Amino acid sequence: MPDSLKSKLKLRHLGIDTYKEAVIYMREDCHVCRAEGFEVHTRVQLTLNGRTLDATLNLLRSSLLEQGEAGLSEYAWESLGAQDGNEIQVSHAPPVHSLSYVRAKIYGNSLGKEQFDNIIMDVAAERYSDIHISSFLTACAGGRLTEEEITYLTGAMVDSGEKLNWDKEQVVDKHCVGGLPGNRTTPIVVSIVTAHGLTMPKTSSRAITSPAGTADTMEVLAPVNLDVPMIRKVVEKENGCVVWGGAISLSPADDRLIRVEKALDLDSEGQLVASVLSKKIAAGSSHVLIDMPVGPTAKVRSMDMAEMLSRYLEQTGTAMGIAVRVHISDGTQPVGRGMGPALEARDLMAVLKNNHDAPQDLRNRALDLAGHILEFSPNVKNGQGRMLAMDILDSGKAWKKFQAICAAQGGLRDIPKARYTHIIQADRAGRVTKIDNRRIARIAKLAGAPADKVAGVDLHTPIGTKIEKGQPIFTVHAKSPGELNYALSYLEGQGGIIKIQVS
Amino acid sequence: MPDSLKSKLKLRHLGIDTYKEAVIYMREDCHVCRAEGFEVHTRVQLTLNGRTLDATLNLLRSSLLEQGEAGLSEYAWESLGAQDGNEIQVSHAPPVHSLSYVRAKIYGNSLGKEQFDNIIMDVAAERYSDIHISSFLTACAGGRLTEEEITYLTGAMVDSGEKLNWDKEQVVDKHCVGGLPGNRTTPIVVSIVTAHGLTMPKTSSRAITSPAGTADTMEVLAPVNLDVPMIRKVVEKENGCVVWGGAISLSPADDRLIRVEKALDLDSEGQLVASVLSKKIAAGSSHVLIDMPVGPTAKVRSMDMAEMLSRYLEQTGTAMGIAVRVHISDGTQPVGRGMGPALEARDLMAVLKNNHDAPQDLRNRALDLAGHILEFSPNVKNGQGRMLAMDILDSGKAWKKFQAICAAQGGLRDIPKARYTHIIQADRAGRVTKIDNRRIARIAKLAGAPADKVAGVDLHTPIGTKIEKGQPIFTVHAKSPGELNYALSYLEGQGGIIKIQVS
Repeated sequence: MPDSLKSKLKLRHLGIDTYKEAVIYMREDCHVCRAEGFEVHTRVQLTLNGRTLDATLNLLRSSLLEQGEAGLSEYAWESLGAQDGNEIQVSHAPPVHSLSYVRAKIYGNSLGKEQFDNIIMDVAAERYSDIHISSFLTACAGGRLTEEEITYLTGAMVDSGEKLNWDKEQVVDKHCVGGLPGNRTTPIVVSIVTAHGLTMPKTSSRAITSPAGTADTMEVLAPVNLDVPMIRKVVEKENGCVVWGGAISLSPADDRLIRVEKALDLDSEGQLVASVLSKKIAAGSSHVLIDMPVGPTAKVRSMDMAEMLSRYLEQTGTAMGIAVRVHISDGTQPVGRGMGPALEARDLMAVLKNNHDAPQDLRNRALDLAGHILEFSPNVKNGQGRMLAMDILDSGKAWKKFQAICAAQGGLRDIPKARYTHIIQADRAGRVTKIDNRRIARIAKLAGAPADKVAGVDLHTPIGTKIEKGQPIFTVHAKSPGELNYALSYLEGQGGIIKIQVS
Repeated sequence: MPDSLKSKLKLRHLGIDTYKEAVIYMREDCHVCRAEGFEVHTRVQLTLNGRTLDATLNLLRSSLLEQGEAGLSEYAWESLGAQDGNEIQVSHAPPVHSLSYVRAKIYGNSLGKEQFDNIIMDVAAERYSDIHISSFLTACAGGRLTEEEITYLTGAMVDSGEKLNWDKEQVVDKHCVGGLPGNRTTPIVVSIVTAHGLTMPKTSSRAITSPAGTADTMEVLAPVNLDVPMIRKVVEKENGCVVWGGAISLSPADDRLIRVEKALDLDSEGQLVASVLSKKIAAGSSHVLIDMPVGPTAKVRSMDMAEMLSRYLEQTGTAMGIAVRVHISDGTQPVGRGMGPALEARDLMAVLKNNHDAPQDLRNRALDLAGHILEFSPNVKNGQGRMLAMDILDSGKAWKKFQAICAAQGGLRDIPKARYTHIIQADRAGRVTKIDNRRIARIAKLAGAPADKVAGVDLHTPIGTKIEKGQPIFTVHAKSPGELNYALSYLEGQGGIIKIQVS
């Protein structure tokens, strides 16, 4: 066979971000397409640097690529460690046998452990396109997973990635189902429960759609990009940590399912349970507290739903050999005052340091959660956890512990302040009756959060506050005058973000 | 608000073919993304030239686009009639309310007429991404549609596009579920039944994965790119036609569902019934014959499946007010001798002209189908159709009719011949026991079919033929020496395409 028929193409960097879907871009008149009979949407197997990856084919009808060249989506580019000029081999993707189990599920059959293992292995290995994942999620939604199947799915997801082992009898953890803006309880909770001697190696995420994630906020105060050996050192020394989880590949199949679930806006109870618990089990936790805010704009909207989910979470936890406790909380209001990494860090530091002006809602939530977690300990009786948590916080032990954890992670940092701020004043006297969290969050993002740590919005008047005309209601913080103006120009003409009712 | 915040971008042609999925490509640091809070995979609404279209966002991390520019997938580019330098407006896509019906279906509820109407309207208007369509298809598969729901779905799909009306009491049509290679019965069937006076305005498709579609083959013999007024003229004059259906938008939602169904490899009986019948009803047919080849490599693999599908097709037809009859046929062998437009045209012409060497399998299939369709006529008794069809074919009336139809479509053409051919000879004596249709089709495509009409493969020895060593078994046809060599180099080292058993 002549060289022109070999299925190799020279890579050119196109830099197209498809959000974790592997795509290869080839010319419509490409010799490999013709020889292999590829068409748009064909699933192909890419081989480069000894690695293989399945991808979806998109064809190019322009001169972005020369004859003999191919491009990759960023996800495929990074997964294969590609470089400009590399020769990539492209062939038909081998058939994905586990798709027949998905079809069996569609036809109403129950699946066994081996079948879930195979499906999740193929999802983790990127052998499923988004279309296949969507079909799998749909087939499992609507209460179509038995309790046994949820346990198999959870186990398969744990096995799809790394697993941590702490050599401790008890490792505690917490997870919040559908977060609330500004709800940065995690560093406070970790400080309290580790000060009491429990082990809590906490990995957190960065912001996806919000002005700050827990990892972004914590990074204001200490380094969070720690690898597994570094995390182990911190936890051995201080019983706990608050680090970014991105460096560890826990339940990677779950990340792929979540990306499609978000696009579908489909909350499948079985999937949610498997998603939450698989990450905790893979992280080596033995006792997990689930914080479940319930409210009309929260992820869980009714008490019925909350109770059903709690039952599934606790039962699956038992089947997987871990203790799970669910704390149902109020999900109707934001928590704290700042939005943006530095402002949220300031709030949680105020709570840890017992400052008189610390946001009480943040303090109370942290105490609730820490109290529940403390009760996992054999030496803390049920009903006594919260009092104990308050003792630890009020005595300064939690603050001391937090400083020690930050030191172990690389050193406590001073909170930076924005050089440019702009105060928004009330245009009338009255009482604050409503705050539009979505638009407030957008202003914080336009001002530069979370990339600029100092950027964000500081709320001065929580719901219920009585105010005078001209009184500051919130302040926009930014790193540069340009960013500040950018956020303020959006603000122009946007009425009613903070609703003031004239009394 | 300053100009830089307006959500307009200048278009640059990128030419990326995503197979009918609307995608917009924007720079990661694009001011519109930041101002609107867009992320990868956000569903956005595009506005250009007074048209709107929902699309999925992909972000660019390279310099393919300048600041202030955006690119579109070919599908979006063509749908919006875009040109380089056009200013496109990008905003958040409005919420798609019918997705709540899809969720209701996932949760096991039956949907009503209005709900299917809304879902299909949104699918046709491209408000569903592939991920959403996959979820809808999965929720409807596995026998989860009631007969009533299949009827609603069919009706909604009919209403999603154009509808033709022929002002005739009876309009007949045929459809083949999962075609067989070389199965070009359509022009023969149309000639026979229209010669008898029935009305059969036949629209056909071009090849997607095969070396020729019916429209590709017919185009060898007469023009097929007719618009609706031209089709009307032909049908008024000759009772029938054989044209390409691509110029008419019948059941456009179906095309979108099929593209995802193919990727899923999911055959949902309800979806199949709605897909087939909606196109026929929209085309104005009153009596439809369904050809259903059954065999291990055909689309319908078992008699059980064939009988279930037949029942659904007939019942839904009745509910929609049309007569549907299903003809179950042998789906184990290819039909005719040629593969590729000109070679297949030659086969069907041989049948129409009653040449002594005409492929008998093609002739017999065409007579079976024409016979069943003739029995739709009130003046043809059941059981007499096939005899009548044979009379019309053998008497030369069908051939005369075919010439008249070709003349009305723009003139009968001579079949072109390939200038370059290569004969493959048997390497041993024996009997032909197996033909690998998939690989034979691939050789025909590598030789240039269907784009080059003359290209393809001519099979000389059907299964069962006794042959000598050195006897020609098939001939590869191509337009240029390059194409011929291209196909032949694939052939090298490919053994067993035609299996010869030494006796």
